[in-house]
Amino acid sequence: MKKNINIAIVGLGQIGVYLYNELNLKKNEIEKKTGKRIKIVAISAKNRNKKRRFSISKKIFYKNPLKIFEKEKIDILFECIGFSDGISKKLVEKALNSKVHVITPNKALISKHGDNLAKLAEKNKVNLEFEASVAGGIPILRTIKEGLATNKINKVYGILNGTTNYILSEMESSNQTFDKVLKKAQKLGFAEPGNPKLDLNGFDAFAKIRILSALSFNGKISKSRCIMEGIENIKLEDIKIANQLGLRIKLLGISEIIEGKLFETVHPCLVSKKTYIGNVNGVMNAVITEGKPVGQSVLQGEGAGPGPTSSSLLSDLMSILRGNIKFPFGISSKKRKTIKPFDIDNYTNSLYLRFEVKDKQGVLSNITNRLAKFKISVDRIIQTPDQKNKKARIIIITHKTKEINAKKCLSIFKSNKNILKFPTLIRLYN
Amino acid sequence: MKKNINIAIVGLGQIGVYLYNELNLKKNEIEKKTGKRIKIVAISAKNRNKKRRFSISKKIFYKNPLKIFEKEKIDILFECIGFSDGISKKLVEKALNSKVHVITPNKALISKHGDNLAKLAEKNKVNLEFEASVAGGIPILRTIKEGLATNKINKVYGILNGTTNYILSEMESSNQTFDKVLKKAQKLGFAEPGNPKLDLNGFDAFAKIRILSALSFNGKISKSRCIMEGIENIKLEDIKIANQLGLRIKLLGISEIIEGKLFETVHPCLVSKKTYIGNVNGVMNAVITEGKPVGQSVLQGEGAGPGPTSSSLLSDLMSILRGNIKFPFGISSKKRKTIKPFDIDNYTNSLYLRFEVKDKQGVLSNITNRLAKFKISVDRIIQTPDQKNKKARIIIITHKTKEINAKKCLSIFKSNKNILKFPTLIRLYN
Repeated sequence: MKKNINIAIVGLGQIGVYLYNELNLKKNEIEKKTGKRIKIVAISAKNRNKKRRFSISKKIFYKNPLKIFEKEKIDILFECIGFSDGISKKLVEKALNSKVHVITPNKALISKHGDNLAKLAEKNKVNLEFEASVAGGIPILRTIKEGLATNKINKVYGILNGTTNYILSEMESSNQTFDKVLKKAQKLGFAEPGNPKLDLNGFDAFAKIRILSALSFNGKISKSRCIMEGIENIKLEDIKIANQLGLRIKLLGISEIIEGKLFETVHPCLVSKKTYIGNVNGVMNAVITEGKPVGQSVLQGEGAGPGPTSSSLLSDLMSILRGNIKFPFGISSKKRKTIKPFDIDNYTNSLYLRFEVKDKQGVLSNITNRLAKFKISVDRIIQTPDQKNKKARIIIITHKTKEINAKKCLSIFKSNKNILKFPTLIRLYN
Repeated sequence: MKKNINIAIVGLGQIGVYLYNELNLKKNEIEKKTGKRIKIVAISAKNRNKKRRFSISKKIFYKNPLKIFEKEKIDILFECIGFSDGISKKLVEKALNSKVHVITPNKALISKHGDNLAKLAEKNKVNLEFEASVAGGIPILRTIKEGLATNKINKVYGILNGTTNYILSEMESSNQTFDKVLKKAQKLGFAEPGNPKLDLNGFDAFAKIRILSALSFNGKISKSRCIMEGIENIKLEDIKIANQLGLRIKLLGISEIIEGKLFETVHPCLVSKKTYIGNVNGVMNAVITEGKPVGQSVLQGEGAGPGPTSSSLLSDLMSILRGNIKFPFGISSKKRKTIKPFDIDNYTNSLYLRFEVKDKQGVLSNITNRLAKFKISVDRIIQTPDQKNKKARIIIITHKTKEINAKKCLSIFKSNKNILKFPTLIRLYN
């Protein structure tokens, strides 16, 4: 690699701007550590004249980022736009085909097109790096690819979304409803002001789990059907009840090999307050890997925000500058295998069920009979009457049961007039 | 780098044996991931015929490890003997001078001679890797050198010794004395059966802290005077009192930059049971870094034992096989600076003091007057009488005070006949 390295940054949102400043700030340190002198020679963003703390010279600004490669000899591209397709995909493809290394925090792109982009990078003998796409500042991808390189990992799971973890923690500690806390999170910059849906519904965590699976198990990114549930339906009431039971609700992403097959999921889980994961609060992320011979490893850190993300982007940059040409997913694309999916229906969990019912005789036995019919055995029942409204709340914790049983069993409650709302279901973490 | 890689292993203790088996087991996987075919061509140990699960061919066995390099073309040496000097040092020097990459879990060697050995490695353009020397299976060195490469780290601390953490946890949970739990630890293989002193007195953790400092702050390994206290004097009584106060005792290694100067220490600390570090129990290790822009990062995992250690040794091997020639301490030895030491005397902490005194009038005021004289102000006092023995126990928690004050203040209690034993001092974690 030559001494002078030309860099392009495309996308000047929160992350792109922070990155731009960091690169300028750390130029000398980077040269000291790697011997390479970096220079930002091209920038592209929606609007050159938007109010920023710095101005962009006309000479290096491109309205159309695809044109950068025609005019400049770029060595490394930072893609900070963030779409799963469209211009993000086109740009990254064009860069790789032009033998330009690519660094991106774009989990939507990698979790959807990572396999093909990796092939393209390998074909062109350049790097495609995406440390920042999973768990912000936590160097988890590098740890799996390098630090735990020869371990046989069979499970990776954790709290992968800072927005939802903040909301759940804050609902508990401030005793406020989901809607109120969401507004607070948006105000503080912990949730997207416009459309926070992709965080809340589990999509964001799910994209990260797919990337983690591919790396941990040396497999292709899976496309199969999975459980993906967010936290939109978690009520303050559930958080309070969990609290009384010594539990806490966390949105977990889980990926594991069960009987040789791949099981991936994102859903809210009830975890013990005494566990490690039950005590990762606020915007923190945590990833736990279980491997042999290393045992359990935990990495925790700030999962979002421009600072942590930028830390990971720069670690990718350093890796490239050190001349570390690597397979994007740790091994050659040819050797990555497709792992068959584990049948979701056979996934087993204990369940927390919350029913709101009319306070009438026979309703409870109606529910327990139905559960028994589907071989769901009950571990605990707590019925609390609401005499004023002639209602009652029934909490049931079940023993372990298969997803398919739970689904079939619960379906009937939709049409039962004594059951006032379709029951809330939260899985217990095994 | 050529395709066939010759490996030598010197030292066949617990770790050497485990490593030998792992290398044979993972040969194919390593070739798949790196394209390199490894072969163990030389082994040296005290005794060739010691009972092992495998036998060593006479052809590859060396009584004198220094002779290996005369007979074989070695590419990579694993030094698994473990001395800080003597044959370990000679062997590593000889290897580096013979342009052989060295991988070692030997923290005693690296914390003492790491600076010179790094220079030697750089001069000969080979790698000196020591991921396994700190926190077993946790890839913390790689994380600092690469994952957090461009962050400005100002503090690194944690639980760095599994033996002492196991003992402290087990004393609390089983309500047994230090001596009993130590025996149990030795039986379970968590403490050296012969001489566990280097774990118990803090030396082991201290060697690790010096390596972590050098990497985190881009400095030379410091040689300056520091606080190094172990857990030999922690009594079950202190653990119980801590428990009542919502605290837990942990042996922490701490390294930080205070006012531009380096402060390194290892001593038992009282930490809140509500904190993360207060809940890292058993043989677990945890390392916390605080950096900008990444914020706080936590890595936790099994800190000792041949499995985790071997995981790190193999990650070093993979790194070398991928052709990743690097400065042992992340940057060139020439650029590593000597950081002036922070004056220990000015280090401030709240203190927990436990006095055993004669139950006589005036003793308590005697103590508090003495504290006041040295400007140590009291936050909490708990006096518990032991009427049968005409004794009393006084627990004092102080506000923050300087080390020098505490030292001067306490010295007099040695010669006070009403104070039955020199007071126990445990620092609170700030």
